[in-house]
Amino acid sequence: MSELRRDPIVGRWVIVNVEDPKAPKDFHIEPHHYDDATNCPFCYGNEHMTPPEIQAFRHEKTHVNKQGWQVRVVPNKFPALQIEGELDRHGLGIFDMSNGIGAHEVIIETPYHTKDISDLEQNEIEKILEMYSLRSKDLEKDKRFKYILLFKNFGSSAGATIDHNHTQLIALPMIPKNVLEELNGSNEYFEYRDRCIFCDIIHQELEEKERVLEQSKNFIAFCPYVSRSPFEIWIMPRAHKLSYCDISKEELSDLAKMLKDVLRRMKTALNDPPYNFIIHTSPINGEDRPGYHWHIEIMPRLSRLAGFEWGTGFYVVSTPPEVAIKYLKEIKL
Amino acid sequence: MSELRRDPIVGRWVIVNVEDPKAPKDFHIEPHHYDDATNCPFCYGNEHMTPPEIQAFRHEKTHVNKQGWQVRVVPNKFPALQIEGELDRHGLGIFDMSNGIGAHEVIIETPYHTKDISDLEQNEIEKILEMYSLRSKDLEKDKRFKYILLFKNFGSSAGATIDHNHTQLIALPMIPKNVLEELNGSNEYFEYRDRCIFCDIIHQELEEKERVLEQSKNFIAFCPYVSRSPFEIWIMPRAHKLSYCDISKEELSDLAKMLKDVLRRMKTALNDPPYNFIIHTSPINGEDRPGYHWHIEIMPRLSRLAGFEWGTGFYVVSTPPEVAIKYLKEIKL
Repeated sequence: MSELRRDPIVGRWVIVNVEDPKAPKDFHIEPHHYDDATNCPFCYGNEHMTPPEIQAFRHEKTHVNKQGWQVRVVPNKFPALQIEGELDRHGLGIFDMSNGIGAHEVIIETPYHTKDISDLEQNEIEKILEMYSLRSKDLEKDKRFKYILLFKNFGSSAGATIDHNHTQLIALPMIPKNVLEELNGSNEYFEYRDRCIFCDIIHQELEEKERVLEQSKNFIAFCPYVSRSPFEIWIMPRAHKLSYCDISKEELSDLAKMLKDVLRRMKTALNDPPYNFIIHTSPINGEDRPGYHWHIEIMPRLSRLAGFEWGTGFYVVSTPPEVAIKYLKEIKL
Repeated sequence: MSELRRDPIVGRWVIVNVEDPKAPKDFHIEPHHYDDATNCPFCYGNEHMTPPEIQAFRHEKTHVNKQGWQVRVVPNKFPALQIEGELDRHGLGIFDMSNGIGAHEVIIETPYHTKDISDLEQNEIEKILEMYSLRSKDLEKDKRFKYILLFKNFGSSAGATIDHNHTQLIALPMIPKNVLEELNGSNEYFEYRDRCIFCDIIHQELEEKERVLEQSKNFIAFCPYVSRSPFEIWIMPRAHKLSYCDISKEELSDLAKMLKDVLRRMKTALNDPPYNFIIHTSPINGEDRPGYHWHIEIMPRLSRLAGFEWGTGFYVVSTPPEVAIKYLKEIKL
């Protein structure tokens, strides 16, 4: 018999196949191939193919919009939202609408066309993670924005349209629904118990040990009890901090190592699967709440959403986290 | 510039590409091919390949679990949930869990291996729709269940694992999150205004005319202002009825015609796309609320969810409903 599990933060149910769990070989994962680098706008020498850079970490004596960068941030050439203009929100009968004000940036993680985060050195990853924070802090100054989302699509079936590894940043003039649900859920818990639900999850996971993948001084990585996707992994700071921007220098370095290890395990165990990772952090400009706790959610894209998921918000998980963790742990780093 | 639109029921935002909308030819839709019928468990003569039938409409003098049926209902051979057992819910530290009690049935829509709903005659579709209601009413008697979901996956990228056209029914021991959100949203509106938000949407759509695809005595089909998917279509009864089970004989016949026409338009305009349809109806066994209004949501699967959608609950819609409707309307039936 399957098992139903309920997420204590947002109230989402998942159906976990505990009786006949899928192994990595049961997922039909197309091997990841990088396309030809010749016309890649994110490669050295092609800097003119992107809009002018917003910010970069560069080797000494190199020039803006020329090669020699380590991490480079540019505006998205086909932005979902545009930075220019006044925010205009109004009603339309019973509907609400707004013009598409926002920021949409691309953080090019590395000059190497075929290297993903798990292939990079710890100090290179640290620079990417630092850039996430720098860009967020810069955009926070814009009072039109309420939320900054950092996310990565790896592989075309996870939504990547350019192979060269990159992260996207979108600044939004409102708090998105999924974030609001997490905020409300964790805040309700906080008000009732005067404790953070994410801290309590860390506590319970460390006590049960069953789903913990990695531990370091500042972070813990685990397969969440209420995973939505097989082999889902969360990385959470041990310290109760609301926002990714509060990350310390020491934490950056610690996180870089853990992210590398976790992604390396996932890549090896699952044959380089498509995945998304999302930084879950607090809203900005006065919209944060004390019960929140920033973290990273990594979801390999191994299954398709169908009518059942669309209709209910349930997820059917073919590999329980308690089983997934075994495959991930046995990978040698 | 794009446009942000907010759904008044659940508060979901979508980003609509109003400036450079995608046309049907811009979506890379793999033509739908039916696999070989020889080993199809849903074809005449293969009735022994499914678990014994639960209910069927049959031609006179034909026998249970033999050919001669028009619509046939069987238990899902690989059920997500199982019907036998007592419901057992308990806490696990901060998590909630339950055993996987539920019903999972398959409604085989037609004996024809390669016919979808839009290829069938109106009276054949009527029988499918009537079966939805009969099965729901039967399962409502089971007091363990709180919700019955009817949904269809067409095409493998919409989640179908068997090509032969069928609908799935899942009875759940709890109200799923997405349904709860719709219920709460519509009920809040109802309590404040003493009006149904779905009735108000019908009213506004009929007044604006811009997104209305079909109208009949009892139903209206339209592309919703806050579509999540390009070419999304909703079919809504004009009468304020909470549950699909309240459908009248006249409405059944009317709906059969509209569903056929709408699916035929979508199939022709978009080159037989994969799609999901979901019947949104009230919870059962005392959990319904006066502000709800049952309806059908049809979503062609033309885009992929990526990190942005996962992180926010936003959807990026590449064809505004006001544009989609033009392509759908110009199809000759």
